[in-house]
Amino acid sequence: MAPRNIKLTIHYDGSGYHGWQMQPGLKTIQGALTEAIQGLVGGKARVAGASRTDAGVSALGQVALVEIDSPIPTENLARAITARLPADIVVAEAVEVPRGFDVTGAAKRKLYRYTIFTGPVRPVLQIRHCWHLPRKLDSAAMAEGGRLFVGKKDFKSFASSADKRENTVRTIFRCDVAREEDRVYIDVEGDSFLYNMVRNMVGTLVEIGVGRRDAEKISEILEARNRTAAGPIAPAEGLCLMWIKYV
Amino acid sequence: MAPRNIKLTIHYDGSGYHGWQMQPGLKTIQGALTEAIQGLVGGKARVAGASRTDAGVSALGQVALVEIDSPIPTENLARAITARLPADIVVAEAVEVPRGFDVTGAAKRKLYRYTIFTGPVRPVLQIRHCWHLPRKLDSAAMAEGGRLFVGKKDFKSFASSADKRENTVRTIFRCDVAREEDRVYIDVEGDSFLYNMVRNMVGTLVEIGVGRRDAEKISEILEARNRTAAGPIAPAEGLCLMWIKYV
Repeated sequence: MAPRNIKLTIHYDGSGYHGWQMQPGLKTIQGALTEAIQGLVGGKARVAGASRTDAGVSALGQVALVEIDSPIPTENLARAITARLPADIVVAEAVEVPRGFDVTGAAKRKLYRYTIFTGPVRPVLQIRHCWHLPRKLDSAAMAEGGRLFVGKKDFKSFASSADKRENTVRTIFRCDVAREEDRVYIDVEGDSFLYNMVRNMVGTLVEIGVGRRDAEKISEILEARNRTAAGPIAPAEGLCLMWIKYV
Repeated sequence: MAPRNIKLTIHYDGSGYHGWQMQPGLKTIQGALTEAIQGLVGGKARVAGASRTDAGVSALGQVALVEIDSPIPTENLARAITARLPADIVVAEAVEVPRGFDVTGAAKRKLYRYTIFTGPVRPVLQIRHCWHLPRKLDSAAMAEGGRLFVGKKDFKSFASSADKRENTVRTIFRCDVAREEDRVYIDVEGDSFLYNMVRNMVGTLVEIGVGRRDAEKISEILEARNRTAAGPIAPAEGLCLMWIKYV
């Protein structure tokens, strides 16, 4: 049986991890997954992720690619890998893909959701997966600001200075702000994202929500092409990678 | 200023704690709260809880009593204590009550909620606060069984053998089973509860839900007055103490 190229869909609670990417001596999602797969197949495995989520960021739709040289049928892989993972990571799906599948480059769209809890009492059962900001947020103004992100634009003002990529133009298909009682959800769907881009967008929208900036300033901030023009970064724990689409 | 008797309403994520009750060398809710209050008032404090929740059990409405001898106004206490607590515990409310208030004995009603997740994929973001049981549950049959718990009955069959209290008669005002998509919620409201009583009731209702027992057997199990007549105990992490009423 030839080695198979397997595309995994992974969910994780990122609150206990130093992010996706493997780092020596640190607990990471890629590290936990690599260990589980190596234990299963009894040999080396290299797991490539589609998105390098930061420390504290969770996912309900991360995608990873791994070459598996084992007689285990593909339909049993998700369950078999999951059985070797800690309770806060799960492989939801495993499907075979052609050789040469580019898990990073072939991704067409990604959706990130950011959750803010605005109620007065700290939400202890969700505190690992939201930003607790006990303030009145003008979600209509935030939604207006969010609409100005939509389109093919230069997001250099919203990229971490650690992101050294020259091309900072990205396409945002939607940036929706919705309130449900004490929660504000910000959904950002794009073709790809710069480092810290969603969290910097959220931090800026929150400045609009508390009345510190006007919604229409988003256009000026984009034009500035300078990180200092935008608002502060929002905390990692509110962010969740919801899905990645390849077609 | 005379010492005040303060009633605290507390929320906590119990997943990282060895239960409510203080134990030397172990991380407990009562221990964390005592430490926070002692740090605030700069002296000894004795925190008495209304319910001794087990390791892994959470609360959105635990109640505790503490005597505070400090000039801090009552209306600032919840915030001041919370500032000294870890992120997974919060004091939602602090009110003064008369001397002699019996936080355990004066409780009239308590509501516990048990959450079961029945979907196939492990719910990583809620895994600390539910029982993941990826099976088809007949929630209508469970609801039928739940109704047989309602009333003033002897719950000896549902008490842990570690509970040495002689009076095992308790009043259950309601035991409702509700399904919402992949979740089954079991709400049990009663005047007071024996040790492990709700988790043993849930374990038995799940046996009904998977078709291993008939709903009407609940009456026979109650009559048996024997722990071995009931089903196995449900895991702690699905249980949450929702509120305690004193009037």
